[in-house]
Amino acid sequence: MRVLETVGGPADLKKLTPKELTDLAAEIRDVLVETVSRTGGHLGPNLGMVEITLAMHRVFDSPTDRLVYDTGHQTYVHKLLTGRAPKFDSLRQEGGLSGYPSQAESEHDIVENSHASTSLSYADGLAKAYRIRKENRHVVALIGDGGLTGGMAWEALNNIATEKDLKLVIIVNDNGRSYSPTVGGLATHLTALRTNPRYEKILDLIKKNLGRTPLVGPPMYEVLHGVKKGLKDMLAPQGMFEDLGLKYVGPVDGHDREAMEDALSKAKAFGGPVIVHAVTQKGFGYAAAEQDEEDNFHQIRPPNKPRGWTDVFAEELVRIGHRRPDVVAITAAMLNPTGLNQFAEAFPDRTFDVGIAEQHAVTSAAGLAMGGMHPVVGLYATFLNRAFDQLLLDVALHKCGVTFVLDRAGVTGDDGPSHNGMWDMSIVQVVPGLRLAAPRDSTRLVELLNEAVDVSDAPTVLRYAKGEVFPDIDPIDKVGGLDVLHRSGTDVLLVGIGSMAATAMDVVERLQAQGIGVTVVDPRWVKPVDPKLVELAPKFKLVVTIEDNGRAGGCGVMIAQALRDHNITTPVRDFGIPQQFLEHAKRAAVLQQIGLTGQQIARDVIEAVAQTQGESISEPATGRPGGA
Amino acid sequence: MRVLETVGGPADLKKLTPKELTDLAAEIRDVLVETVSRTGGHLGPNLGMVEITLAMHRVFDSPTDRLVYDTGHQTYVHKLLTGRAPKFDSLRQEGGLSGYPSQAESEHDIVENSHASTSLSYADGLAKAYRIRKENRHVVALIGDGGLTGGMAWEALNNIATEKDLKLVIIVNDNGRSYSPTVGGLATHLTALRTNPRYEKILDLIKKNLGRTPLVGPPMYEVLHGVKKGLKDMLAPQGMFEDLGLKYVGPVDGHDREAMEDALSKAKAFGGPVIVHAVTQKGFGYAAAEQDEEDNFHQIRPPNKPRGWTDVFAEELVRIGHRRPDVVAITAAMLNPTGLNQFAEAFPDRTFDVGIAEQHAVTSAAGLAMGGMHPVVGLYATFLNRAFDQLLLDVALHKCGVTFVLDRAGVTGDDGPSHNGMWDMSIVQVVPGLRLAAPRDSTRLVELLNEAVDVSDAPTVLRYAKGEVFPDIDPIDKVGGLDVLHRSGTDVLLVGIGSMAATAMDVVERLQAQGIGVTVVDPRWVKPVDPKLVELAPKFKLVVTIEDNGRAGGCGVMIAQALRDHNITTPVRDFGIPQQFLEHAKRAAVLQQIGLTGQQIARDVIEAVAQTQGESISEPATGRPGGA
Repeated sequence: MRVLETVGGPADLKKLTPKELTDLAAEIRDVLVETVSRTGGHLGPNLGMVEITLAMHRVFDSPTDRLVYDTGHQTYVHKLLTGRAPKFDSLRQEGGLSGYPSQAESEHDIVENSHASTSLSYADGLAKAYRIRKENRHVVALIGDGGLTGGMAWEALNNIATEKDLKLVIIVNDNGRSYSPTVGGLATHLTALRTNPRYEKILDLIKKNLGRTPLVGPPMYEVLHGVKKGLKDMLAPQGMFEDLGLKYVGPVDGHDREAMEDALSKAKAFGGPVIVHAVTQKGFGYAAAEQDEEDNFHQIRPPNKPRGWTDVFAEELVRIGHRRPDVVAITAAMLNPTGLNQFAEAFPDRTFDVGIAEQHAVTSAAGLAMGGMHPVVGLYATFLNRAFDQLLLDVALHKCGVTFVLDRAGVTGDDGPSHNGMWDMSIVQVVPGLRLAAPRDSTRLVELLNEAVDVSDAPTVLRYAKGEVFPDIDPIDKVGGLDVLHRSGTDVLLVGIGSMAATAMDVVERLQAQGIGVTVVDPRWVKPVDPKLVELAPKFKLVVTIEDNGRAGGCGVMIAQALRDHNITTPVRDFGIPQQFLEHAKRAAVLQQIGLTGQQIARDVIEAVAQTQGESISEPATGRPGGA
Repeated sequence: MRVLETVGGPADLKKLTPKELTDLAAEIRDVLVETVSRTGGHLGPNLGMVEITLAMHRVFDSPTDRLVYDTGHQTYVHKLLTGRAPKFDSLRQEGGLSGYPSQAESEHDIVENSHASTSLSYADGLAKAYRIRKENRHVVALIGDGGLTGGMAWEALNNIATEKDLKLVIIVNDNGRSYSPTVGGLATHLTALRTNPRYEKILDLIKKNLGRTPLVGPPMYEVLHGVKKGLKDMLAPQGMFEDLGLKYVGPVDGHDREAMEDALSKAKAFGGPVIVHAVTQKGFGYAAAEQDEEDNFHQIRPPNKPRGWTDVFAEELVRIGHRRPDVVAITAAMLNPTGLNQFAEAFPDRTFDVGIAEQHAVTSAAGLAMGGMHPVVGLYATFLNRAFDQLLLDVALHKCGVTFVLDRAGVTGDDGPSHNGMWDMSIVQVVPGLRLAAPRDSTRLVELLNEAVDVSDAPTVLRYAKGEVFPDIDPIDKVGGLDVLHRSGTDVLLVGIGSMAATAMDVVERLQAQGIGVTVVDPRWVKPVDPKLVELAPKFKLVVTIEDNGRAGGCGVMIAQALRDHNITTPVRDFGIPQQFLEHAKRAAVLQQIGLTGQQIARDVIEAVAQTQGESISEPATGRPGGA
């Protein structure tokens, strides 16, 4: 019988012998490799977290003590140790375990979000609440060195430092990588620490002393202080934390469970905020992952993946880079996932990876534009939310020509609610002067990217879906900026936005079968609303908009507003994502659930056409999203 | 003749004698006190900037070298020295000088935005652009110690540290205050430095050595290094910056012009990024401002101001605090302006001022809510944009009961485009589960605040205008959650949102004079759309919504969408702020410009009613906002 099968919850861990714990760590690594190879997901980060997670659960008592993980993709080991091992093969499958923490799954999960650098702020709030309520509970936040490049983490540290009596332990899991190698001044110093030949000796020294002395009081203080003084240049980040007034323990070998338990026990006993600096290796214990220089098997994806939106963008931007020496690229720790690595290879001096720091990425882009360059900022759609103020005031108010390319827009599916890119087309509507485009296929992506980098006095946003690029749909006609994709009548004007142009074409046949005449257009640029669209609308009995974005404040409502502003009374039906957090599942399954398929839209449109002809009036069908 | 009259631009400063420069500084202080006492504006920060600004313009050559000021309200001296002294008495008046930098005013102004902590990112981008373009230009960023509490500044520092050849000088203007005293671990250390009796001696030592040795090369390095080693505990922030790999000069007395010029000259000669740490006193040279412990005359407002929205909120929250021990308050360096100072006095252990750190404020609130408290987060409406992702994913996704109270919502006027709170009601529409209320008067503010703190499973947002609270408008009836304010017919349903309820009442008389029957409702809670509003709409010929918020994605379009979703074909006219950046002027003047007055709305509604009766179809009137 495997040890893992005897672990029904964290309490069981406390009964295990050192030998059993070592065996358990090996079993966990086997399960991780076996499962994630099959289901996809984050392998490298979780392989690096095995011993730290064991130590956390042995030293603290979850859920009385609260464990907050930054970027929830590193919680697979936590899931295995909190009663979810039997269901682990359902990871990231519809109805199965989430790839992130989930309050619905377990009382041991608290923060579900996958955006980085937030854990210290949650922990600060939790620990303050327990202090006010006089509850004797510890809060443990685990954050990577990559997460520390995000400004939020600094804001939290600056506040935590002054709260001397918070029962708060911060574990810095320092593997020198966020998604790709961590960047910036902090990373340089952490690297200096890890690569120094004296590192092993220091670890030994610290472990020995930690074993012997209490954390507080003169002896330990002297030891830490002495270590720091003697190794000032190597242990610089410690200096930074201490300058803020934060107690610091480390560095500790994060793959030495006993050393981690020692350090955490003492941090727990201290009674105020303490930073424990653990050094780990992403992919530890799995040779193939350890040796993968690029991202240590950060995320496992199917092999031989077909040509994706990202590839089309990546290749075209390199072509533009050759033609336009003023074009520069910026990304926030997403050089490979956004495809900007190709631009970086061709133009290393014109590429900037700023770390997990979207705010800085966007305002630095404004500065580059003011200095005469044209920056292209590559982000996941969901992460634009983190730099909304900077887009609005730093870029748009200053009329800077900056192109934002949003990958993974719309329903992404597997990674759960916080990864869906369903907010971007709504929030950018409020940005004066901004132009927004949603390419429907690779030819349009190439066209629109070239048009975007030619805009020099306003931000532009291009957004496209995750994964495989859609087959080209060639226009049969052009009306102003609109591509006409189909024309068989003037009953219904279907406006298919971005990837939903394909869905609109699917709706066509179903309507024609009912004798309903249809015209399909793709506006290409969806903000501002094309005047030709406003001219076209009154010729139809019904206007239908379809977008892969939240319905609230999206393209549909803006088209409807433009029609009202021109006294056009043609009814509008706007299809999009209902304004709710979507559970993880495959993209197709999610679209089915929320009614965004050709079949479901066609059924609703047929009913709506009947209504415009006065044949029946009824409540909206359930398949049709009914608002916020 | 005053020296100031001889200064037509920065070049003239370089010809002045030390005596003339000293006289000039005194003249500038006189002009600041005289003008700002009359026009209102930021006095304390500018009194503290006189010598630093003189030194900046004498050492660097603007606009070839670029001067980027964090939070533009500290640029009055810069304006006086760049040819705008003759127009300075028009400060903050319509058509006059802006209270912030303005590209339209001067080639010496570059960043117009007033939101804090952005300057280092702009400067990073500008300096990178000049490096790529091989232009020999310096970039100087001036940031306060308060601005350094914002995470963006940390993100920028982390990046700048690795760019060894950027011609970038960062001046930290350390006055120990953001709006009120700066908070956090960083502030604690800076305070320790300033209050140490040995500080004067160190300043002397540094000044002497700076005067003697070149910045680079062994002698200066030894001096700085030596000073640092000897005074490690006192000069801690220096250690932090150096740990990141950033060169540091300081502390320098920021009111000693010659010392500042010395330090800046050497920083300029260095050729890579350098931090110059200047210690100043807010309000320096004006005894009354120096001695004002609260905020050193940060901003001058008219005396005897009437009872404002802020006062109503502040008093009611204290009452709630007595009744509800779980209620806590959070603000981001805005304790006084948001009125949370009253709560802080009554409940110091339940109040948290986190510094200029909106992201941390919001996620820490999520943590407090998870720990069993009900946080009330007090912000200016425009600053919610800086924590949008945190509101969406950290608070709403986790179903945390957090009340956001947004002051200065709608058109604020005088402070220019970045201070108007015209985005909040649009961006929160996309947040699932969030409830949004806009109180029309003080009675409703009290009611809605009490209702908001009773919501435990979702965020709520309350928003109200700047300044004097509006006279109460008592309801004549209630229909569901709606307050009916007037009822004289069923031609037009006027939906007045928040402060626009008063405007709706002004429209009533004008419509009645034309024989048009009107009903006015205030929905109180505007998100989600009240089902009773949907029931009511079909009984009217026209629905008119009025909001003090951007039209794109605002309440009007969401009401229109709700009607479409229920197959209601009553036409909707949605009035709001056109989606453009608004120039500074008095609130009333801005509302007139954008057509948001009773008179202008009435005219458009009368025309729209005629259209619904088929009497005429025309383009929208110019006074009526025509979309993004």
